[in-house]
Order: sequence, then C-alpha cells, then structure tokens
Amino acid sequence: MALLDTIGNPDDLKKLGEDEIPQLAQEIRDFLVSEVSRTGGHLGPNLGVVELTVALHRVFDSPREPILFDTGHQSYVHKMLTGRQDFSKLRNAGGLSGYPSRAESEHDFIENSHASTVLSYADGLAKANELQGRGDRTVVAVIGDGALTGGMAWEALNNIAEGKNRRIVIVVNDNGRSYSPTMGGLADHLATLRMAPGYEQALDLAKVALNRAPVVGPPLYDALHGLKKGIKDAIQPQIMFEDLGLKYLGPIDGHNEQTVEKALRRARDFGGPVIVHCITQKGKGYAPAENHDEDQFHAIPKLDADTGKAKSAPGSVKWTKVFSEEMVELGAEREDIVAITAAMLHPTGLAAFAEAYPDRIYDVGIAEQHAATSATGLAMGGLHPVVAVYATFLNRCFDQVLMDAALHRQGVTFCLDRAGITGDDGASHNGMWDLSILNVVPELRLAVPRDATRLREQLREAVAVDDAPTVVRYPKGEVAPEIPAVGRIGSMDVLRRAADGGHSEDLLLVAVGPMAETCCEVADRMAAQGIGVTVIDPRWVKPLDPALVAEAAGYSVVAVVEDNGRVGAVGDAVARALRDADLDIPVRTFGIDQEFLDHASRTTILADMGLTPQELSRKLTETVSRHTERSPLADEPAQS
Amino acid sequence: MALLDTIGNPDDLKKLGEDEIPQLAQEIRDFLVSEVSRTGGHLGPNLGVVELTVALHRVFDSPREPILFDTGHQSYVHKMLTGRQDFSKLRNAGGLSGYPSRAESEHDFIENSHASTVLSYADGLAKANELQGRGDRTVVAVIGDGALTGGMAWEALNNIAEGKNRRIVIVVNDNGRSYSPTMGGLADHLATLRMAPGYEQALDLAKVALNRAPVVGPPLYDALHGLKKGIKDAIQPQIMFEDLGLKYLGPIDGHNEQTVEKALRRARDFGGPVIVHCITQKGKGYAPAENHDEDQFHAIPKLDADTGKAKSAPGSVKWTKVFSEEMVELGAEREDIVAITAAMLHPTGLAAFAEAYPDRIYDVGIAEQHAATSATGLAMGGLHPVVAVYATFLNRCFDQVLMDAALHRQGVTFCLDRAGITGDDGASHNGMWDLSILNVVPELRLAVPRDATRLREQLREAVAVDDAPTVVRYPKGEVAPEIPAVGRIGSMDVLRRAADGGHSEDLLLVAVGPMAETCCEVADRMAAQGIGVTVIDPRWVKPLDPALVAEAAGYSVVAVVEDNGRVGAVGDAVARALRDADLDIPVRTFGIDQEFLDHASRTTILADMGLTPQELSRKLTETVSRHTERSPLADEPAQS
Repeated sequence: MALLDTIGNPDDLKKLGEDEIPQLAQEIRDFLVSEVSRTGGHLGPNLGVVELTVALHRVFDSPREPILFDTGHQSYVHKMLTGRQDFSKLRNAGGLSGYPSRAESEHDFIENSHASTVLSYADGLAKANELQGRGDRTVVAVIGDGALTGGMAWEALNNIAEGKNRRIVIVVNDNGRSYSPTMGGLADHLATLRMAPGYEQALDLAKVALNRAPVVGPPLYDALHGLKKGIKDAIQPQIMFEDLGLKYLGPIDGHNEQTVEKALRRARDFGGPVIVHCITQKGKGYAPAENHDEDQFHAIPKLDADTGKAKSAPGSVKWTKVFSEEMVELGAEREDIVAITAAMLHPTGLAAFAEAYPDRIYDVGIAEQHAATSATGLAMGGLHPVVAVYATFLNRCFDQVLMDAALHRQGVTFCLDRAGITGDDGASHNGMWDLSILNVVPELRLAVPRDATRLREQLREAVAVDDAPTVVRYPKGEVAPEIPAVGRIGSMDVLRRAADGGHSEDLLLVAVGPMAETCCEVADRMAAQGIGVTVIDPRWVKPLDPALVAEAAGYSVVAVVEDNGRVGAVGDAVARALRDADLDIPVRTFGIDQEFLDHASRTTILADMGLTPQELSRKLTETVSRHTERSPLADEPAQS
Repeated sequence: MALLDTIGNPDDLKKLGEDEIPQLAQEIRDFLVSEVSRTGGHLGPNLGVVELTVALHRVFDSPREPILFDTGHQSYVHKMLTGRQDFSKLRNAGGLSGYPSRAESEHDFIENSHASTVLSYADGLAKANELQGRGDRTVVAVIGDGALTGGMAWEALNNIAEGKNRRIVIVVNDNGRSYSPTMGGLADHLATLRMAPGYEQALDLAKVALNRAPVVGPPLYDALHGLKKGIKDAIQPQIMFEDLGLKYLGPIDGHNEQTVEKALRRARDFGGPVIVHCITQKGKGYAPAENHDEDQFHAIPKLDADTGKAKSAPGSVKWTKVFSEEMVELGAEREDIVAITAAMLHPTGLAAFAEAYPDRIYDVGIAEQHAATSATGLAMGGLHPVVAVYATFLNRCFDQVLMDAALHRQGVTFCLDRAGITGDDGASHNGMWDLSILNVVPELRLAVPRDATRLREQLREAVAVDDAPTVVRYPKGEVAPEIPAVGRIGSMDVLRRAADGGHSEDLLLVAVGPMAETCCEVADRMAAQGIGVTVIDPRWVKPLDPALVAEAAGYSVVAVVEDNGRVGAVGDAVARALRDADLDIPVRTFGIDQEFLDHASRTTILADMGLTPQELSRKLTETVSRHTERSPLADEPAQS
C-alpha cells in the first residue's frame, strides 16, 4: 500500500517515521507528474516544495497555526497532505482549484494569486493572535525569492520587524527564480547567502542555480562577486534581514526534509519573527522539468508524462506570439523602443525582443509599480518603453499609470496580455478589471484589437504616441479569426452593415476587440429575423471617436459587448457619451458580471454570463422589437 | 542688498563664496516663514532642507542633471533657487504650485506628490542616459526616510543596485519622521546608522529626533538597541544598503552645507549609484515649528509668523474631527475594533484613538498596500480593522482592496478623508478617483455621508459589516450643513419631495453625499420654475438600493450629482441600473471632468465644472422641459 494513501490529514503525516519520508516524497512527485501532466497546471513549483511542505505540516499545527502560501500555485502538495488527492478535474469546473481555496479546506487561507502579499496577511494574523490571547500560536508564511522583490513584501518586513514578540515564521523558498531568474540587488544578496561556506548541502543546489545562464540577468561578475563576498561573510556575516531587525536562519537545503524540520522547529521555538532561508530547485526530481531552461515547467499544458512533451501540437497562433514578433520588428525599426517585464520575460513574449536587443530589455522583478514609473522615467529621458504585463497584474500599478505616466503625459505603452476571461486560474487571474480602471485615467488611450492584424496595427499606433500613455489589451490563447472591415466611420471599422432599405437602422452594435466574432454572429442571426444591425469595432475605446455618437443618432437601439467587467468599462463609456450629447437612445451593455468567478473554462464562463451569439441575439431582438414596436418576423419578412 | 535677491538661477548660487552660505540660508528661512505663514503650505519640510537644497544646486548642473524630489512638498527652496521667488499666490489659482511643476520651470520634473516614486523615475532616467550616450550625467533623487518604507522604493533600490555604472545619487533626507515618526525595522536601522560614533555633528540631531517621544512607536528599547548596535558597527559597519549592493555615504549633518556639498561631490564622482544619508531636522531654525510635537508644522494654515499660531480661530467642525471622535466612541464599545494608518496618524484623525487604545493602533509607514492586506489578515483573525487614509492614496492599494479584502470577503472598513475636490494641492491630491475604482470591486459596500450625523451613523453601519469590505468617504475641511431627511425610500433618505399635484414627477435628483446641499438648492430653484423635483440621498451608493430603480420609474428625467470624476462613478452606476431594468428614462450625470486639474480653490474648481446650483438647475430645467414638452414657467405657474 502506498504511503500517500494513508495521509488523510496532517496528523497522519506526523505519525510517519523519519525513514518513511523519502518514500512519501517520491510518491508525491510521481503523483504530481502523472496527474498534472493529464490536466495541465503548475508543475515545476510544486515539485520544488515537496520536502518543504511535508516538513511544514509535520512541525506546525495547521489550521490552528495557519500555513500561508504566497501566490498559491505551489500549494498542490499542501492540498495532497490536507485531504485532497483527487486531481482529476484540477482547474476545471467542479474540480480542485489551482490555488488555495477556502471552500475546499479549512487549511486554506489565501486565494489571491497576486504575488508578495503573504507577509502582510501574516502580519495581520499575528497581530490578531497577540491581541486576542493566542500569542503562543505561530503564523507561517511561505514566499519565493522572486516575490520578495515586490514592494509589498518590503512594507510587510518592515512592519513584522516591529513586533518582536509576534510569532511569525517566514519561509523564503529560494530557487533563484520566480518565472524568470530573479534580478537585482536582492537576488545578488541572496546569492551571497547561498554561497556561504559551511552550508555544503546548500552549495550544490546553488551551483545548479548559477549554472543556469539567464537570458537577461546579472552579469557573471555579480555571481562571482556574490561568491567572493560569501567567503568573506563566513567570517563576519552581513545579513540584510538582520539589519532590518529580523532573525535569520539559513541557508538550508530545502530538499533535505529533516534539515528543514529542524530549522522550522528552531524558528517556531524562537518566539518572534524569524526568516528561514530554504534553497530549493524548481522541477526537482523530474528530469524534463529540471532540464527545462525557460522556466522548469512553471505552468504546463497537458503533457506526455514520460517525455515531458506537450500533447497537442500547437499549430495555432497565440496573441502573445503576435505581440512577440511585432516587438522584434519594431525594435529593429526604432532604436528608442525599450521593453520592460515584471519577472515574466517568457510568458509575456518579450524573450525574443530580449534576445534581439539585450541592451534594451529590463526585467524589474515582480514589481509592477516600479515598472510603470521607471518606464515613465525612461520616456522622460527620450525613449519609448513598452511594458508587457498580464492584465490582472496591471491593478498593482494603477496609481503609477495614473499619477506618473498619465499626469506627466509620457509616451509609455502598456501591453496587457491575458485580458478578459482566462478562466481556469480562477478569480484573481481573470483580466476583467483593466478596461474599467483605465477608463478613469485622463490622457491615456486604450486599444482593444479584435484580431492579429489589428494587434500589429494598433501596437504600431500605440508606440507612435509620445505625449500620453497608451494601452493595448488582448486575451490569452489563440488569436481570434480575422475579420476584415467592410467600411470605416471616422477611425472605427465597420464589420457588418445593415442591409439598405429595410430597417437598416434598428441596432448599432459596438464590438469591443475579440468580441467582434460573437457580435458578427449576433448581427447575422438578427438579420435573419428582419432586424437591421450594424456592427462597428471602435478599435480605440478611449477616447471614443465622436463619430460613434454621430452614427448612433441614427439607430433605435445601441448595444455594447465586451470581455471585461461591466462596471465602468466601454459600455458605460458609450452610454455616457450618448447622454452627454443629449441623445436619449436606449443602450444595452453586455460584459462580465462584476463578481469573483469560480475557476472554469473560458467557454463555460462566457456562456454563464450570456455572452453567446444565441443569448445576445435573443435579448437584443427583444429590446429592438420593443423600441421599434415591431415583432421580429411578424410584420416583416426575414432578410437573410 | 539681500543675497537672495541676487539668485536668479543655480549659476548665481554657484558664484557665492562658502562664507556667504549661512547668510543665504538665514534669508531663505526668513522668507519661508514670512511667506508661507501668509498663504499656508508646507513649512516644516522646507525649513529642514535649506542647506541640502543649496548644496544640491551648487554641486549638480540642473536641469542637465535633474534633481528629483519625492512627494515634492519640500521643493520650495528649490523653487526659490531656480527663479521663483514670488510666493504671494502660492497654491492659489494663477500662483506657484505647492509642488514641482513642469509648467513653471525646466528645473522641475515630477509633479506627482504620492510618495516613494522618485527612485523609479531616477532609475528610468539613468537608464535613458546610459542608452543614449549621456552616461556621464548624474540623476539626483531626494527621498525622505518615511518614503523609504513604501514598497516602490524597495522595488527601485533593487533595480538601481543592478546598474553598477548608472550615475544615480540618492539623497536620503532623514528627519526620523515623515508626517508621524517613521516606524518599523527600517526606521530602527536608520536610527542605528544615525548613532554611529565618529559622526558627532549628526549625533546631536539624532538626539533631538530620539527625544521627541512618538505617540505610537518603537519602544525606547529599540532606540537604545540602535545606539548599542551603532557602537558595535563602528568597528564593523553593517549596512543594509551595502548588502543590497549600493554604496553608502553617511550619515552626515544635513544642516552643515559644506559637509553636504563634500559628500555630494564624492557621491557624484563615484560613477555609480550611491546613497547619501543626510540627517536633518524638520522645522529647523523656526522655534514654533521645531517645538511642535505633532508634525513640526508639516503643512500649515495661514499663521501669525511671530507666534506660529493659526490666524483664523477654527470654531467650525471638520469632517476629520467627527470621524476622530466617533472612532474613540466605537473603540470603547467594541474591543475588536483596531485602526491602521499609513504614516498619517494626526492628519487622518486617528491620534485620539491611538491615545485611548495604544494597543489597537498600527502605523504601518507610507505603505498603503500593506495597510490593506494586513487589515485583511487582522479581519481573518477576528478583529474589525478601520484603515484611515486620504482618498487619493487609496489608489495605491486598489489591488489589495480588490484581491485581498474583497475576494476573501473580510470585514475591513476603509475611511477615506479628503475625498472629492481638495483643490489647492493640485492634481495628485484631489480625491476624485475612489468612487470610480471602488465601484469595480465586487462585494465592497460604499457609503458617502452627506453631513456629520450621517458620517457617524454610516461609520457605525460600516463597522457592523463583517463579511465584506466597507468604505466611508468624506471631504476635506468643514462639515456640510445638516440636512434632515423628510422621508425614506428603502434605505435612502428623501431630502426634498416634489409638491403633490403639479408636476411632481419631473425630476428625480440623486445627491451623492455632501453634494446634497447643492442638490437641495437646485430643487428649490427648479420648483420656482414649476418643475417638480425629488431629491434623494442613497447614503450607500454601492450596492445601489433596488428601490432607487423602482422610484426612478415614475419620473421623466433622472440626474445624479457627485463630487468625483464622472467616469465609472455613481452617475454611471445609476444609469446602468436603469438600463439593466429596461427603464429607458433620460439620465444626466454631473461630477468632476475626468482630467488632471490645476491647483485652485475648491469653490473655483466646482464652479469651473458647472457644479453650482445655478448651472445645474439651468441645465436640468432645459432637459426636463425638453422631455416633458413643457417650457419652464410657460404653461405652468411658479410653485414657490
């Protein structure tokens, strides 16, 4: 009988003998490889924390002593040890979430997968323990070296250091990289610590980390410097965290479970905030992941577990790829274009630009705030920066986009990948906020390309603007089918024009970006009902072209369809533009309901939201009929 | 002839002899005290940087070598040395801005007064210098010790450390406090550095800083610990910044101009990023400021310069004061209520709570992100945190309010002071963004009290909610006049009811918070024109009471008036609610134009925006007339 089958909860785990742990670890790894290969998911990060997670649950008393995971994509092992071993529907509707989920287990606390937050939660929970007589309980926070580069982590460390008697154990899970290799002064400092002699077990791992040459990164000099500094430090350790007033333990070999347990027990018994610095290896124990240079299988599609090859041949073109290629072309044409990523060089598609123009790429760490304002500085200095970031992570630098880039009217281009419903990563990964919060920003211009041609075209239009920030947003996955324009109104593309004669002016349908395909199908369906529908793609949704208002004046009903939360997005903007012009035409706006969505496929969610051609045409037919006082197909022959 | 009169630009300053500087410094201080007393403004911070600013302009070649000020309220001396000595209309329409302003001078770069951004700008500018063959020029960034607690500063330091050859001089202007004493591990570390023997000039200043007992702060133990550690460090300095890979110079006495010049020249000649740690004293040289315990005259109203007493006896009650008192009462009633400030203990009115319940107040530094997420942790731990922050600074933690507090459905109450037009501090201080971005956040509930009674009442309603974040927002300055309700519709207050008979259902006017006074006057004016107007205050503007839609169904026109940017705020929400209910009634929405506003008084700005009773009633009368097909006073006798 497999050991893993006997682990229903952390108490079972505590009963195992030390000698049984290596077998358990092996079983966990085998399980992860075979299960995650089937569903897709975060494999590399979880293979790296097997021993660490086992040790955490053997030392601490979860959930009385909460174990909090930053970002949460490395919580699979934690799930397996807390009664959740059915991974068959991982990240699918009705199956396990890819992140901690309070609905799943009392052992889960933080569902948000935006980075660098965990120390702040821990600070709050420890303060609550202190005030309410639970000061003997420890709060455990697990954070990656990459997430430590995020400003929130610094804010929290500064506050945690203040509470000398609050029991917080901070486990720094240091694999030398988050998605990409971790950059900057902190990374160098961690490298120094990793190199400290006397920690020979850790040293081997550190060598692995060093030998993996980053695409863009600290020069070899820095690594060597780290090594030299480490030797000096063996005599007189200089430890940044201790300067800040925090106790520091480490570095330790995060794949030696007994070592980790020992360190965690010492940290727990200290009675105040302690940092435990664990060196781990992403993808550990699975050769295809260990040898994968890009990101050690950070997040994988469905794979053949034996070979580690993706099962479905791609063939299709992804939005990210289109952006990636166009950036390389733009880089060749314009020397003033530079690119910025917040630790997402590969996922955002900037790796190709980095390879072509190594002097013009900046990986700032998981630091969106700095990305936006440093970009503003670059623009003030005469360059045109392109900041590529996932749409949901733009939230992190709203104030910097507003008060730094826009207030100073600087030409910075933000490219938002994974905009709209992404689905299977759950509530915090859907890119459903950006159109709303960016609409608030004066000066800023906002493009939503509907297909690959428009993405290339509008990215070029965006980088041509040098006196205001520009944004180009596009979804996850395969590009939408090309939809050629059949005409132009001002700067807007006409995609379908209501047949002349008939009731050509029944409905003006404003299609936002990739919702164009759905909108065209709506138009076709409604035309079949004798309703005249014109579909336009405004291309730039902010500012709205005044021609939109002029055109709308001729229709009975105006509708907007977008792949963003409905509140404050393009629908609201169109409605506002019409009423500001004293045009009191009925408007209907369709988008994502303003709520936190459970993980499910994009298709499932869009259907749930009524964003299908069937449902949209049903509703709009009803609305148009009411306002034109005609029944569909009643007093009118079908036109198709 | 005064020396100051001879300084038209930094070149004039460079011509002065060393022996003339003390006199110049004295003249600058005299000027600041007499001028700022007359207009109000940031006095303490500017008195603290007189010698530092003189030294900066003598050493560097501005604007070729930009001198960037974080937050910018300490740029008055810089203005005086760069050709701007007419302070007569400081912070008034047509006069000098209270912050750097690119429209005023080529020596100004950053207008944003949100903290901790300057290092990111400097990083960008230095990278632009490097890429474009201007690598010999230095970029200078001046940042306070308080602003270093902000996460952005950490993100930037981490990146700046990466560019060993980029010339950036970071001046840490360390007065041991930003608004309140600076808190946390970093503050302790800076205290350690301050105490290092061998820097006797600095030591005296540090003693001053230490002797000023903070209301809430690090225990004396920490300060003593800092002292002891300092002595140890004299033998083997442990310097956090050097661990991060940054050169460090200091600490130096920031009031000895020659010492500062010497350090700045050394830093400039180093050829890479260097931190220069300057110890200064806020309010230096003006006894009423030096002796002012609260904040050394951080920002003052008009004063009698000799006594330092405010000229106008207050008498009137301020919104902040109402909040402050109610928090003390709530604290007595409920032990689970705790309060959080981001380095704004006094300005937010939390000082009284802190004094009454010293165990239940947390000053987290200039760290809004941490404030929001730590509050979420406190709520998870069973407490009810109240986070008090200026409305404009809430932008900084939008992602944390959304993804941490709201996603986890935690009872955290955010109290937003200085909401709406604040005016004289310019574009980045107006609280005109919060209603828009908070409308995007699922679960969150949003109250806009119209007067002091409602502020007390709704704060109580807010802290009673334990399964969602709540927000209460209120303006700067004196409370609005009390407006009693004449009735209720659902949870909403009716403030004016259209006379029965007549045309009682012409206009439903939705008054958001303190715009109630204006709306009531609009109603009175329109009633005089024979138009029936009902004014309601929804009290909670998110979620909107469904009764609002039901009520609206009976009117010819619906209008909304609010003191927030128009995009995505309450007006858009009301319009959306109506169209979602298939109620195609004309809606008009009034608020602040979505643009960056020049500094001017609140009254001036509201008039510019058409938010006066005169202008609103004129526009609405016209709209109602069109939609009811009646001319005002034409077919109807006046009703008043």
